[in-house]
Amino acid sequence: MEYDTITAISTPMGEGAIAIVRLSGSEAVSIADSIYKGKINLQDAESHTIHYGKLIEPKTEEAVEEVMVSVMRGPRTFTREDVVEINCHGGIVSVNRVLQLVLNHGARLAEPGEFTKRAFLNGRIDLSQAEAVMDLIRAKTDRAMNVALNQMEGRLSKLVGKLRQTLLETIAHVEVNIDYPEYDAEEMTHALLNEKLGFVKSEVEKILVTAQQGKILREGLSTAIIGRPNVGKSSLMNALVHENKAIVTEIAGTTRDVIEEYVNVRGVPLHLVDTAGIRETEDIVERIGVEKSRKVLKESDLILLVINNNEPLSIEDENLFEAVKGLDVIVIVNKTDLDPKIDMNRVKELAGPHPVITTSLLHEEGVDHLEEGIARLFFQGGIEAQDITYVSNSRHIALLQQTIRHIDEALNGIEMSLPVDMVQIDITRAWEILGEIIGDTVSESLIDQLFSQFCLGK
Amino acid sequence: MEYDTITAISTPMGEGAIAIVRLSGSEAVSIADSIYKGKINLQDAESHTIHYGKLIEPKTEEAVEEVMVSVMRGPRTFTREDVVEINCHGGIVSVNRVLQLVLNHGARLAEPGEFTKRAFLNGRIDLSQAEAVMDLIRAKTDRAMNVALNQMEGRLSKLVGKLRQTLLETIAHVEVNIDYPEYDAEEMTHALLNEKLGFVKSEVEKILVTAQQGKILREGLSTAIIGRPNVGKSSLMNALVHENKAIVTEIAGTTRDVIEEYVNVRGVPLHLVDTAGIRETEDIVERIGVEKSRKVLKESDLILLVINNNEPLSIEDENLFEAVKGLDVIVIVNKTDLDPKIDMNRVKELAGPHPVITTSLLHEEGVDHLEEGIARLFFQGGIEAQDITYVSNSRHIALLQQTIRHIDEALNGIEMSLPVDMVQIDITRAWEILGEIIGDTVSESLIDQLFSQFCLGK
Repeated sequence: MEYDTITAISTPMGEGAIAIVRLSGSEAVSIADSIYKGKINLQDAESHTIHYGKLIEPKTEEAVEEVMVSVMRGPRTFTREDVVEINCHGGIVSVNRVLQLVLNHGARLAEPGEFTKRAFLNGRIDLSQAEAVMDLIRAKTDRAMNVALNQMEGRLSKLVGKLRQTLLETIAHVEVNIDYPEYDAEEMTHALLNEKLGFVKSEVEKILVTAQQGKILREGLSTAIIGRPNVGKSSLMNALVHENKAIVTEIAGTTRDVIEEYVNVRGVPLHLVDTAGIRETEDIVERIGVEKSRKVLKESDLILLVINNNEPLSIEDENLFEAVKGLDVIVIVNKTDLDPKIDMNRVKELAGPHPVITTSLLHEEGVDHLEEGIARLFFQGGIEAQDITYVSNSRHIALLQQTIRHIDEALNGIEMSLPVDMVQIDITRAWEILGEIIGDTVSESLIDQLFSQFCLGK
Repeated sequence: MEYDTITAISTPMGEGAIAIVRLSGSEAVSIADSIYKGKINLQDAESHTIHYGKLIEPKTEEAVEEVMVSVMRGPRTFTREDVVEINCHGGIVSVNRVLQLVLNHGARLAEPGEFTKRAFLNGRIDLSQAEAVMDLIRAKTDRAMNVALNQMEGRLSKLVGKLRQTLLETIAHVEVNIDYPEYDAEEMTHALLNEKLGFVKSEVEKILVTAQQGKILREGLSTAIIGRPNVGKSSLMNALVHENKAIVTEIAGTTRDVIEEYVNVRGVPLHLVDTAGIRETEDIVERIGVEKSRKVLKESDLILLVINNNEPLSIEDENLFEAVKGLDVIVIVNKTDLDPKIDMNRVKELAGPHPVITTSLLHEEGVDHLEEGIARLFFQGGIEAQDITYVSNSRHIALLQQTIRHIDEALNGIEMSLPVDMVQIDITRAWEILGEIIGDTVSESLIDQLFSQFCLGK
């Protein structure tokens, strides 16, 4: 298939040493060549070579920028089309000027995600791999990046492909049974259908077990810190941020803002509610009552409930315990450097199955234990292996759940001895739905919508 | 000269499609090769070629990232050393992970500007060209970028080189005169010395004429908007920002923050004081008196004094006119949509030589005239030619001024018929000082200090 030539700035905006303006399409090389002045014509350049030179305004021969131009000819490229990357100086004026020049000479500004979309449309990657590209860019922790890298390499695609193959074989058997009811009818027993469908269902369920972890790895564990005033909520937030942000910011020059709210606790990305949010939660139970506040708190994946070792349990504390019942909670008894006035037996009783951790945040004591507790809570299923195929994308999770529903329908049909062509409808539907994960059976508008969430230049 | 191998992230930090980790030094290729897995060994790669593959942790063979690696061998590189650029996905985790891997396998984290410093130390560019690299990245307007581009191409270097040559020839003549006073003494007349030195002085003066404009192009015209409350200062600020910011932000995805305070008015970058600043200036004259406020306002390159067409001139208005006397001012009579109650003759009298422009900012009228006025004020000398060698760097300006001082000393010496070897001291010093611009005669600590102001990865 042939498309027009697109272009975009492919590096983050800001001041840096280098910025890249990328072109993809059949005219990529000729457009670049028309504004390039160097030792050779880019049209004559071999694929995957780099050329120093100047960009010029062809009419006036005026120099626009000093550049390095990479020429890569399809299909050995990201999009499978001809790709040109223009490396220029990483200033805002410089990169916009180069982009403008390229736009003025025949390229069209790419939509967000359009390069990756072409890689998908030209068959280089499937949809789940394309989605992994974006997950990889947005990854907040090493673990999340590994998950995305695995998915990008096609691990989920392979798994889904295998299950679809099984379903296809099952459908083929059913077809045989419909078309030639006299032939081999015995073999297409309910037992065999049950076995094949049971296998697919259990495999899908296995993937779904990782979904919650996968989603958290991708989006962060939404974490609320609650407690009465002055128990140490802000100190806790600071301690978590202070001790852990280093992993992603230890390289000088990293923009702090981007990850400000993410804290990487032993591989678990915590998405901490902002300080304002923390201030609000202290009144939440009083203000809206236990029942309503439960609903609000339920939106958090993890609640850190802080109480004060130096004060007796108050009715507000008891209400907070009531509000978080049944949720994922870690109880933090803070200020252990001061006299213990709290009834620890009662605390443990109220905490029930939830871990209770003592800290003296003032003296930076106990944060280690808290972090261990968070990691344990998250990895409790022992799902810690590096190479597991996590499914993390909400779209994939929803499709896998739908797959299970249709397989259950098919299994029910078999149980009720429905005609096999009725059962076949559900099996086919399950096959189609799995196909949507990899983009095999998916509408154009969905594709457009998915890629529009990408960042520009990808 | 051979240095160790350095590395840094060379693209701005943030989420983008592509990020670059750059290496430079004799080990650049072998370090990259040790963590690269692709079709060939990078050590065998031809220069200026691009290679798709994976970065791996060599011990475990674990995949770290999917990358494109560019191999460029010295001396045909930015630093004249072997350079490797690793293009990876533009996420924060991804790029830090790649950097970490490279650091773990033998490269050292580059200091800010260290790549450019090597280009300088290895003789690829001189100091003024290196400084232009940074100016180019920081350029806020097209014009500023052109100035930097010209300087990067060595235009200032050539000019300085020519002047130094003239001084050197003059010194040689003097030497002849000292060593062989009997030989050709007549020719080394004061007249000749006067002529040569006069030529150099007038050339340096010509460059310095552009200094103010060059500096403003580079740093922006520091602009204060002043006026009594409710005359329309904020509306003026909004109109200028609204109508002009587009030039640098018309491409979607541009980070607004970076240039928020710069407005490009017909090629003149205005550095607008922030809104808080505007609020303050309205009280400035009342609060600190005319004399003191003059001093404060003198720090601005341009003052936009706003008065209200719909009110008679007040004593505060008159004080403001008094405070800005002798400074670069444009008077804006706003609210022309309302009844004129102001005495325009008095306004023109107070304004004196300064332009008076009428606007109705509410109806977006008159902003055009204001912009014309700003551009005229800035380019009044007619210095608008694209290819002029602006000198914009404070360091260069100071050195050129010192050059003139020493030439003046020499000329004085000649006038006073001092011995030629006394005169020679000043001529030599002028020659040395000009050399500092291009880095020919400059101390190591100054070089370190200059490059430390660069951004990381450049």
